[in-house]
Amino acid sequence: MVEDFQVRTDLALEARESYEEDDIRIRGVRIEEEEDKEREIYTSVVRIETENGAKAMGKPVGTYITLEAPNLSAPDEGCHREISEEIARHLRALLGEGKRSVLIVGLGNREVTPDALGPNVVGNLHITRHMIREYGRACGDTDEVSVSAVVPGVMAQTGMETLEIVQGIVRETKPDLVIAIDALAARSTRRLNRTIQITDTGINPGSGVGNHREGINQEILGIPVIAIGVPTVVDAATIVNDTMENLVEAMDRSESMQQLGGMLGTLDKAEKHQLIRELISPQLNTMFVTPKDIDDTVKRLSFTISEGLNLCFAGQQNKV
Amino acid sequence: MVEDFQVRTDLALEARESYEEDDIRIRGVRIEEEEDKEREIYTSVVRIETENGAKAMGKPVGTYITLEAPNLSAPDEGCHREISEEIARHLRALLGEGKRSVLIVGLGNREVTPDALGPNVVGNLHITRHMIREYGRACGDTDEVSVSAVVPGVMAQTGMETLEIVQGIVRETKPDLVIAIDALAARSTRRLNRTIQITDTGINPGSGVGNHREGINQEILGIPVIAIGVPTVVDAATIVNDTMENLVEAMDRSESMQQLGGMLGTLDKAEKHQLIRELISPQLNTMFVTPKDIDDTVKRLSFTISEGLNLCFAGQQNKV
Amino acid sequence: MVEDFQVRTDLALEARESYEEDDIRIRGVRIEEEEDKEREIYTSVVRIETENGAKAMGKPVGTYITLEAPNLSAPDEGCHREISEEIARHLRALLGEGKRSVLIVGLGNREVTPDALGPNVVGNLHITRHMIREYGRACGDTDEVSVSAVVPGVMAQTGMETLEIVQGIVRETKPDLVIAIDALAARSTRRLNRTIQITDTGINPGSGVGNHREGINQEILGIPVIAIGVPTVVDAATIVNDTMENLVEAMDRSESMQQLGGMLGTLDKAEKHQLIRELISPQLNTMFVTPKDIDDTVKRLSFTISEGLNLCFAGQQNKV
Amino acid sequence: MVEDFQVRTDLALEARESYEEDDIRIRGVRIEEEEDKEREIYTSVVRIETENGAKAMGKPVGTYITLEAPNLSAPDEGCHREISEEIARHLRALLGEGKRSVLIVGLGNREVTPDALGPNVVGNLHITRHMIREYGRACGDTDEVSVSAVVPGVMAQTGMETLEIVQGIVRETKPDLVIAIDALAARSTRRLNRTIQITDTGINPGSGVGNHREGINQEILGIPVIAIGVPTVVDAATIVNDTMENLVEAMDRSESMQQLGGMLGTLDKAEKHQLIRELISPQLNTMFVTPKDIDDTVKRLSFTISEGLNLCFAGQQNKV
Repeated sequence: MVEDFQVRTDLALEARESYEEDDIRIRGVRIEEEEDKEREIYTSVVRIETENGAKAMGKPVGTYITLEAPNLSAPDEGCHREISEEIARHLRALLGEGKRSVLIVGLGNREVTPDALGPNVVGNLHITRHMIREYGRACGDTDEVSVSAVVPGVMAQTGMETLEIVQGIVRETKPDLVIAIDALAARSTRRLNRTIQITDTGINPGSGVGNHREGINQEILGIPVIAIGVPTVVDAATIVNDTMENLVEAMDRSESMQQLGGMLGTLDKAEKHQLIRELISPQLNTMFVTPKDIDDTVKRLSFTISEGLNLCFAGQQNKV
Repeated sequence: MVEDFQVRTDLALEARESYEEDDIRIRGVRIEEEEDKEREIYTSVVRIETENGAKAMGKPVGTYITLEAPNLSAPDEGCHREISEEIARHLRALLGEGKRSVLIVGLGNREVTPDALGPNVVGNLHITRHMIREYGRACGDTDEVSVSAVVPGVMAQTGMETLEIVQGIVRETKPDLVIAIDALAARSTRRLNRTIQITDTGINPGSGVGNHREGINQEILGIPVIAIGVPTVVDAATIVNDTMENLVEAMDRSESMQQLGGMLGTLDKAEKHQLIRELISPQLNTMFVTPKDIDDTVKRLSFTISEGLNLCFAGQQNKV
Repeated sequence: MVEDFQVRTDLALEARESYEEDDIRIRGVRIEEEEDKEREIYTSVVRIETENGAKAMGKPVGTYITLEAPNLSAPDEGCHREISEEIARHLRALLGEGKRSVLIVGLGNREVTPDALGPNVVGNLHITRHMIREYGRACGDTDEVSVSAVVPGVMAQTGMETLEIVQGIVRETKPDLVIAIDALAARSTRRLNRTIQITDTGINPGSGVGNHREGINQEILGIPVIAIGVPTVVDAATIVNDTMENLVEAMDRSESMQQLGGMLGTLDKAEKHQLIRELISPQLNTMFVTPKDIDDTVKRLSFTISEGLNLCFAGQQNKV
Repeated sequence: MVEDFQVRTDLALEARESYEEDDIRIRGVRIEEEEDKEREIYTSVVRIETENGAKAMGKPVGTYITLEAPNLSAPDEGCHREISEEIARHLRALLGEGKRSVLIVGLGNREVTPDALGPNVVGNLHITRHMIREYGRACGDTDEVSVSAVVPGVMAQTGMETLEIVQGIVRETKPDLVIAIDALAARSTRRLNRTIQITDTGINPGSGVGNHREGINQEILGIPVIAIGVPTVVDAATIVNDTMENLVEAMDRSESMQQLGGMLGTLDKAEKHQLIRELISPQLNTMFVTPKDIDDTVKRLSFTISEGLNLCFAGQQNKV
């Protein structure tokens, strides 16, 4: 049974795919896909609509938008403006009417390259709350959203749960909405640094590179929380697992390998996973896998996301 | 009259000195000095005891300890351990009994070298709150203080008053005490980077390199706030003023200069200051003066202060 | 006489202005000005054509292009693309035909905010030398210039003259051209962060925030050296001097001040400057003045300049 | 046969261990071990003395000193002074008499946390070359070594081979000795961040986190090159391989597994490795595995190593 084997992914898209392999349709989960061939953007929207769907997917009820662009991490003269525009468009749809103030939270550790996505995004934002409080909204532009932001740091640096810091600031400054940016763990190296997930379910326990212990979501904060994430690492244990799965699959498929696999071939999926788990070094659980050029990639992705936020929250006159 | 002329200093020691020049003793202000010749540490304790004293000094009622060490910013094999020990000793005296948890706040802008003192200090702290919450205090060591820390950023980065962030976190995590670290503005280049001020009055409006608009002190937070500061900049206007003062003084003193000064010599102090103010470019008010080797200096000073805090809050067994 | 009074400026434009005040036309110096009102870019080209002109200006023979844009340091959606394009245009004109490889040198100290311009610019460049060496120039694009870059650090960090490092690398890698990026000292706070100077005279002793002791120019390296600089600081002594000049001028102009100035009014310019110098604290010579928002400003300017370089050296197909 | 299977390690200690498992003694390789129980430092000295030994070990002829300390990456009040002293002692022995000037090269990418070891070490060094050139050696201290340092950056940032930069600087500044600091790849997660390797063979092609393409060693530079390295990553492919090896071993050992392994058990080592290689995703070759707390660890290790260098090169009077 799949659900008692834990290969971690923060992407709803990947959670769904593991089902597809088993050729199962899940009730309570709807999926739409869209392909923009010209701009090479592939969009999936996974809607988990019932508690049953949530349980099956291992993710809370809500909407998960995934933008994939094969060249997202490659240099580009306009810094992937087309992706920034897509982010802005989806954000506007998710946040609905009447939001006048937003707190953007850059989660993660600025000292660890693949975890610095959130802090980097915050570093490029147009912050306006203090200006609006001092001088009012730009003339006639009653749509301008007041933007504040914070980089709370990680528990090893602060001694506090990220939630404690965010909760405190939300209670004090009363934004209408929180947007949390975080680096994610993917299940597959194939998705690293070319996928952006936007969800209205916020941050949930165990997600992110740093594995948040407590969620940052509407249930807890009392206001909507949108999370934007990019997978920048794969858990080390996952990498190993993948290769082992390849072995198991190879054994199942090829004739000579079946022979080779001998009794291994007779184990069911759960027994095979049990075997794999036993062979993986426990130290791997505190380790992650990331590409060597992660510095460049995170810099670029951060810029693209912060521009998406800037486009979304700039006043009427600048809207796309 | 001195008090209507604003040359900014965050150091109580300098506020006092401006009086000495005028040869005035201030009621409600007590001063003790101590010289440790061997270790080359000069300690002044200014106690402002009455509202009258506070008004005269332009600083709130409280205790201001100043450590001066001529070589504080110079390289030193042990990173000025002797100063770290002095900081720990004074902190313990100021914070008294029964403090079980402290929130250390690294004020200032980590992107501006002379203002990065607070963020740098926090980067070297031994953070223990999360460990104590998970595993309890180290065995038998009931004295261990739970240490948490945060770098709130500056208003241009967050859109929020630093106070809003600190207030929110204090309400959520309920420490017994806040210690705020901040880079200060001195009145004189002579004191830059060789003076550490420790005070139980917290941070007050207009202080720090970034000029806080609201205070972070016991009156506002409801718990004791100790501030540790090092002057790393001089306001640009102050530098100019100093030179002009030299001119005015020279005119007053030397015979030929008196002649030279002509009617300038007949102006009283306030009139002279008025004249100086008019000559100073208004742009200078958003500028600061700092030494070219400020990167090295701030790195060293941050380490010395964080070691002082680590010594102070380490459990019984590690105490000096 | 002006030339024996040293107020430091790295801008040829300012060196010229100090003459204008004295209403002197300098032989051997030609000046062209251009105003692009729509894009709000003011361009001056100062051509020092003879040794006489060089001596009078205190700058080597060569071309000094200055772009001024009042809003250069302000946020802008396109990161001042119009300035990047101007930089690319002027660079192409200066470097002439046949340059196939360029070494870009990011001078300055990345740890000191206003001096980090050069290192920051290098961080945003499209580096191509290693790709071209591995795979050849992009197909058919024989115009593509091979770009390499280095951040040599400052003497306090390396123990070496910047020239030694650059000279060594030039001898080893044999580029056709060096472009050096450096933060400059201006004479006036008015020009800070809104002026870009491009010159074919390279870097000369005493210039830059860090005051290079040896030049980096064609005479020494044997290949053309273009320098791009932005004034981000004013020397502390200059600020003081400016205010004193205001005093001296006020004394000269107003009747009551003349009276006030008394004998001061009878001093000639050189004597007044002598007086000012004596009053300025010697410590000020190791200090600089910079605006409080220098972090944001340097980040923006660096991006604009690196985009100018990227535009200039991208292959044929991407040219503006 | 082991030598045609490539599991990468930069540690001579690990290269030796892979032989021990096969119970082979290698001619031309001598090993000494020393255990300092009180200070918990384990020292191994591997001397590769012949070309035969070099071929067998896959490492050049020379001396490889490895310090292991289980708590090296843990916080420690004195920043592991005892290890710094050991580093200084071994360095002095390796560099012999008559060295008057050293160039310390901080290899690696300061933007990628586990690769920032070299740049961080250089940031904490006492640089003296420029002082000695200006003022001479400290009085009477004819032993003082002139220290210069450089952080050359990585090829993606510079477009140049590290060797080109170092070679150029060596030719220009003519040091007696180069010391290169680099983050290494280990074969096993067990050794990460608790092992320091010092060798007189310099840096050789394919070593380091960034996999240098050309060596930096005496053969090429013409002066002695000492390399100091700490393993901070494991290649992703190695991690996977390790688990697969566990599987293969388990199959070889246990009876039930032998049955389970079936024909797999009949493959020889090379055939098994071939199988493993085929199953590993090719993307893994550009990825590395590193612990989540790598930021803290690299900061600490860098400090310990730079203090070792500072102790080694401080003049007579400061020697341990």
